[in-house]
Amino acid sequence: MPVSIKHLLGLKGVSHDDITTILDTADTFHEVLQREVKVVPPLRGKTVVNFFYENSTRTRLSFEMAEKRLSANPLNFSTSGSSVSKGETLKDTIQNIEAMKIDMIVVRHQSAGIPLFLTTCTDAVIINAGDGYNEHPTQALLDIMTIRQRLRRLEGLKVTIVGDILHSRVARSNIWGMKTLGMNVTLCAPSTLLPHDHDALGCPCTTDVNDALEDADVIMLLRPQLERQQRGLFPSVREYRSFFGIDAEKMKRAQKNALIMHPGPINRGVELASDVADSDNSLILDQVTNGVATRMAVLYLLGGGDNVQ
Amino acid sequence: MPVSIKHLLGLKGVSHDDITTILDTADTFHEVLQREVKVVPPLRGKTVVNFFYENSTRTRLSFEMAEKRLSANPLNFSTSGSSVSKGETLKDTIQNIEAMKIDMIVVRHQSAGIPLFLTTCTDAVIINAGDGYNEHPTQALLDIMTIRQRLRRLEGLKVTIVGDILHSRVARSNIWGMKTLGMNVTLCAPSTLLPHDHDALGCPCTTDVNDALEDADVIMLLRPQLERQQRGLFPSVREYRSFFGIDAEKMKRAQKNALIMHPGPINRGVELASDVADSDNSLILDQVTNGVATRMAVLYLLGGGDNVQ
Amino acid sequence: MPVSIKHLLGLKGVSHDDITTILDTADTFHEVLQREVKVVPPLRGKTVVNFFYENSTRTRLSFEMAEKRLSANPLNFSTSGSSVSKGETLKDTIQNIEAMKIDMIVVRHQSAGIPLFLTTCTDAVIINAGDGYNEHPTQALLDIMTIRQRLRRLEGLKVTIVGDILHSRVARSNIWGMKTLGMNVTLCAPSTLLPHDHDALGCPCTTDVNDALEDADVIMLLRPQLERQQRGLFPSVREYRSFFGIDAEKMKRAQKNALIMHPGPINRGVELASDVADSDNSLILDQVTNGVATRMAVLYLLGGGDNVQ
Repeated sequence: MPVSIKHLLGLKGVSHDDITTILDTADTFHEVLQREVKVVPPLRGKTVVNFFYENSTRTRLSFEMAEKRLSANPLNFSTSGSSVSKGETLKDTIQNIEAMKIDMIVVRHQSAGIPLFLTTCTDAVIINAGDGYNEHPTQALLDIMTIRQRLRRLEGLKVTIVGDILHSRVARSNIWGMKTLGMNVTLCAPSTLLPHDHDALGCPCTTDVNDALEDADVIMLLRPQLERQQRGLFPSVREYRSFFGIDAEKMKRAQKNALIMHPGPINRGVELASDVADSDNSLILDQVTNGVATRMAVLYLLGGGDNVQ
Repeated sequence: MPVSIKHLLGLKGVSHDDITTILDTADTFHEVLQREVKVVPPLRGKTVVNFFYENSTRTRLSFEMAEKRLSANPLNFSTSGSSVSKGETLKDTIQNIEAMKIDMIVVRHQSAGIPLFLTTCTDAVIINAGDGYNEHPTQALLDIMTIRQRLRRLEGLKVTIVGDILHSRVARSNIWGMKTLGMNVTLCAPSTLLPHDHDALGCPCTTDVNDALEDADVIMLLRPQLERQQRGLFPSVREYRSFFGIDAEKMKRAQKNALIMHPGPINRGVELASDVADSDNSLILDQVTNGVATRMAVLYLLGGGDNVQ
Repeated sequence: MPVSIKHLLGLKGVSHDDITTILDTADTFHEVLQREVKVVPPLRGKTVVNFFYENSTRTRLSFEMAEKRLSANPLNFSTSGSSVSKGETLKDTIQNIEAMKIDMIVVRHQSAGIPLFLTTCTDAVIINAGDGYNEHPTQALLDIMTIRQRLRRLEGLKVTIVGDILHSRVARSNIWGMKTLGMNVTLCAPSTLLPHDHDALGCPCTTDVNDALEDADVIMLLRPQLERQQRGLFPSVREYRSFFGIDAEKMKRAQKNALIMHPGPINRGVELASDVADSDNSLILDQVTNGVATRMAVLYLLGGGDNVQ
């Protein structure tokens, strides 16, 4: 296997070489997605269980599409109506699924650390599709792939992440991956939503979006989780838009032609203005396409499949 | 491509030639469905998203079966648990799905005009699986196919549609399609449920079911939406059955051996008597079989697939 | 077809030869499941509808996996959002599904006798995946297969089933199947949960678990349905564990190395102690693997497929 990891639990600790291999493989699958026939055979006969404890149409669909295009058999397992509600332990649930002779498990869970825990329960390959506030590594890989695809380089780029960093596994995975690849990450959020461990993360943090955008090559926006307003963590929509919403005016502080990214779904007129979302510098839809290619790459590399045709 | 339309949004405005091509192709697929192995390869490697904003087990299952039998990859997207509830615009949702490099979208939505709107947002082929009170073109095509299969002709036939015409996209699509093919359509409903635009539809309308059935070759029943009773639009079940329910007695007004059709699910003893539903002249189950064949034809013709094997 | 049954409605009345053929075929598929590529072609082009009126992630997943590994097309039909809620009769629903030209129906329903009823409505092959308190034949077949796999024989073995026998279709199917194969079954439950027709079942019944375990070769535990406590049928968890929960101490009454089985999901510390569940004599995960193999065997034998490769 050309990568040294067995599972993809996060980007923290994953080597420069392994990330680069995944990105290169994803580029290859991006070519496949431009073809008329987008299905390739490497995972034929393999079963991948999509084990989503949290709802996620978008990520689930992207993984399922990636699996089908590699000719794997996807099986969807969601919590509603499952034995989870009958008092079975998570370990027993996973060992039961593994006993059906499956090959890989894509897992999303509201608690950080569940994918890591699962590796102690099963021999199947575990791919983290988002665990609590911890990591969402395929999202970060697709983000990085998208930047590299457009700018043809990564090292030394300045990426500014704006939004609810505190609760964002997307931000966290991007920070680990980008730092490994020599990129500079700046974090910007209302003070209540900055990470408590920013020293450990090792990135400059600021509540001033104009400072944060200064000379940025890439501006990555996060979705404000407005439901957190009730807990007093989040400003009003009007305040958020005014201070952190990215519009043409704020964009002037960044590099000319700075790229705009967002993991979606976007709230037009809240965290970013519509004209910015739809500009040529917006990579939002490229991220979606590359999401499928990245997940194909990860599934392919960890699934021990045959050659790509 | 042997049809001049790119999308199937409705039957209004679709040419006689195009409808005939679809019906002929559906007849071919009907042959395929009689085989031991019912899967053919023309859409291998194509991805079709079934985008159902309204629940519909029956239509969704029929499309999914058609897609699998053409060797396409179906992906089901329903609104529950999706990003729709997170404030994303429909246009953004669709462009996100398209960015995953999909080929066709089958859409059902509670609002009329959504399939047309989607054609402005995406390059994918759009197939309308029912939009509000507007159209449900594949249902009308399968209805017409079923009549032609039994009677070996269409032109000049008298079709009487009985039921809640006002809220019926099935009626509306049948009216447009049947008129294009030279059939005569009569509409019959309680006065509160007759269409407001019957002049535009150009069909005789009546509240007298005995008049409406006079010399009918085909009697097409619609499902009474009994939940509309509360809004004062619908008579009681007893009244409805008495005045509009089709039984052996009322059938005497129609042509001998007049055919009975219904899009399902049926309420036995309400809009039609059980013995009529189960008679040799009932085409209800043929409609279901032909639904799969018709959807295969539409997907095949618009999907740009290879030859049928 | 090498079995004399057309459908699998239950094990009551199924011959020794037919059960043995299914078990032998399941052993073959168990070999397939050890391979790197676990997909075989015999049901290519066949459509199997999984018609689950009762929620069941585990059994549904096992059937779906079996279907995909035989290259069949599975279609899932669940009641939520379906035409079932629109007043359609079950017979009409099934005939509609059959009219889509499907080959087999796997059905789970809360009412006993529904699978048998369906055979009168359709020509499709019916496989019972659990009907009320009546039977769950594939579960019993996988249980018997698992015992045979470990002990290399069946005749004369003593199997003790402990738990809510009264409401257990798993127990009932096992009783019929095991008796046909010459095994001795003892039933043990609180007196409120012993079957009312134990004379008809022809098995010794007792409320004393120590008696029941005496010389047992196999101990099969059932899941206590704790929601029945409210109806006064079920003891408290503490009482149940104390009198019926299997731990190392109670195991001493059974044969040395007596096997432990459970259809899952298990409640650790209630009906069985964790150390017993995880011991070498526990077959619980083998049962899960064999569930896929058994369902492949049943689908294969009744589906009239081609040769296994």
